[in-house]
Amino acid sequence: MSQLPNTLTYAASGVDYDLLDAFKRECQAAASGTVGALAALGLSEPKAVRGDSAYLVETSDSFIAHVEEGLGTKNLVADAVMEKTGVSHYRAIAIDLVATIVNDLITSGARPAVVAMHAAVGDAAWFAHVQRRQDLAAGFAAGCRLAGAVWGGGETPALKGVVADGAIVLGGSAIGLIQPKARRIMGDIQGGDAILLVASNGVHANGLTLCRRIADSLPAGYQTPITPDGPSYGDGLLAPSVIYAPLIAACQDAGLPIHYAVHVTGHGWRKLMRAEANVVYRVTDPGKPSPLFKFLMKAGPVAEKEAWGTFNMGVGFALIMPKGAAEVAVGLAQQHGMRAWIGGAVADEGGRKAVEIPSLGLAWESETLAVRG
Amino acid sequence: MSQLPNTLTYAASGVDYDLLDAFKRECQAAASGTVGALAALGLSEPKAVRGDSAYLVETSDSFIAHVEEGLGTKNLVADAVMEKTGVSHYRAIAIDLVATIVNDLITSGARPAVVAMHAAVGDAAWFAHVQRRQDLAAGFAAGCRLAGAVWGGGETPALKGVVADGAIVLGGSAIGLIQPKARRIMGDIQGGDAILLVASNGVHANGLTLCRRIADSLPAGYQTPITPDGPSYGDGLLAPSVIYAPLIAACQDAGLPIHYAVHVTGHGWRKLMRAEANVVYRVTDPGKPSPLFKFLMKAGPVAEKEAWGTFNMGVGFALIMPKGAAEVAVGLAQQHGMRAWIGGAVADEGGRKAVEIPSLGLAWESETLAVRG
Repeated sequence: MSQLPNTLTYAASGVDYDLLDAFKRECQAAASGTVGALAALGLSEPKAVRGDSAYLVETSDSFIAHVEEGLGTKNLVADAVMEKTGVSHYRAIAIDLVATIVNDLITSGARPAVVAMHAAVGDAAWFAHVQRRQDLAAGFAAGCRLAGAVWGGGETPALKGVVADGAIVLGGSAIGLIQPKARRIMGDIQGGDAILLVASNGVHANGLTLCRRIADSLPAGYQTPITPDGPSYGDGLLAPSVIYAPLIAACQDAGLPIHYAVHVTGHGWRKLMRAEANVVYRVTDPGKPSPLFKFLMKAGPVAEKEAWGTFNMGVGFALIMPKGAAEVAVGLAQQHGMRAWIGGAVADEGGRKAVEIPSLGLAWESETLAVRG
Repeated sequence: MSQLPNTLTYAASGVDYDLLDAFKRECQAAASGTVGALAALGLSEPKAVRGDSAYLVETSDSFIAHVEEGLGTKNLVADAVMEKTGVSHYRAIAIDLVATIVNDLITSGARPAVVAMHAAVGDAAWFAHVQRRQDLAAGFAAGCRLAGAVWGGGETPALKGVVADGAIVLGGSAIGLIQPKARRIMGDIQGGDAILLVASNGVHANGLTLCRRIADSLPAGYQTPITPDGPSYGDGLLAPSVIYAPLIAACQDAGLPIHYAVHVTGHGWRKLMRAEANVVYRVTDPGKPSPLFKFLMKAGPVAEKEAWGTFNMGVGFALIMPKGAAEVAVGLAQQHGMRAWIGGAVADEGGRKAVEIPSLGLAWESETLAVRG
């Protein structure tokens, strides 16, 4: 079914992904020509690591994982809300920033070790708002604590003419360790594996361009309540992301096999088929999206398939593991304050690769997730 | 001697460093509260590492080094030159970006292992200029090769409203390894140590805000020749930075003791006293600044003390080592295509900390380099 012409789609958000993808391909080609340097350092690059969410190098007794990531445009929501209400949401924004980096890192099986912040402003006057800047620092430390990592260093330049006036570019990087090596998550997905879904806390850092367009179309903007007596749209969007590192670590410490791990970000539930395996991810229990997602769909309007193919719809992370292991992981998640459930199973269907949510009549074939990066 | 009122100073560049420094201090305080996470990972933080150019964690048999850095505003020079001439200098810009990251990393004694690029644009249309985008990718790979590191991953978002229209924010991160641990550069500076100065290739990525202001004041801007039959000001500024990693590695491989390493960036030659040691760095042979620096001083005008306290003035890196070792290092530099010379010596003068260039009548006391970060 094609998109209704008057509904919002992510593709119409104004970002030319063809150009970005062309550059990414050129970078990957250029980068692959640099691998030879590792041998002189006693290191090597594991097969097929490029295109994964975290880059790995192999040492004699471990893998070192590396992620460089950015928050995207979520902080523009915090800025708009602060302009109206005076309330800084930068503690949550900073946790989002750590989450966006660390949740990518742990898909490799790495334990986060060191995280760094990169905060570039258009004008140093950004830091004149004391509460906002202290929230950003305190929130980043809180995020690192949730991730079980140390906040190492960082960079905070003022770049007039490069960063937009009044804005801040938030990014950063992390180092993780996989030790022993057997803890690496390899993508060895089997037919019959369970799909463990782990709850998100709102949109996290994904689909914000679309969320901001919706705010623009609302008479009360971010102040619009998402239910009659519920929180405002802005506050709903600015709930801090969940950091899933403790769950992966708990599964590893319990000896549970993890065949694959997915950070549900861009492309929403299509991300479930990020692994190379040609299998069908059949989700029989997708959970119940929170009022925020229902609000987004109605206010957009955003059609159901577009919503599930763009937002996380209440699921921020997924683990593919044997059914028995997944049952144990449900309890481990609860012990760490997360909500997880077995949402479906992997099916081997003769090479077909797809994500299906039969109860909603939704299915995406592999070509709808062309970019592994 | 106070600054002449009609000369340019870096302090007048319009960046409020008090606000940036306040945020940095808050970040360092918050970050130091996260160190406890390392113990559970079998890692620890070396003493006094915060404030150094690279962050380190200690493993059982190595240190892992981490740097997150940005290029600053140098690419605005490339954009302005491209607008006039159509020539992309983004290959050099990408080498600058790797250099700015890696030259910080190696001050710890780490061998660069993995480098990642973060390139955030205001509009994906930035990548529509095919030559520029391909130069950026090819140059980053070239920089990684010069550093002896692999280009791991990266992030290339389009952030409308966050990054200025038509601009690109260039940053990134690197991981390095110090193995065996004895290769760590510790700051154990001794009176009598030699100061080995290593030549730069122009301004590198430092002092560019001042350079851009000077361009604005010139009738022919970046097209102004720096000598009657010399290159243009723009081309001079856009010479790619030197990557010093091979020299450090060669010194280590030769068993030469390195007491300290300085990446000469912000604060120019004042950076020589970056270490904690209370000693005097007396430079008897500062070298002869290239025509580009003479042009900058005349065109600004930039007073001599401001110039040496802001720009690298022909020296991009310095090593503090025993005199005999420094003599060997001069030859090693030459073998790796770099020019190095013994520029002076460290003197223990009863706790005084300063940098002096007697032949130019210049001296800076320790309080002129307040920020170790």
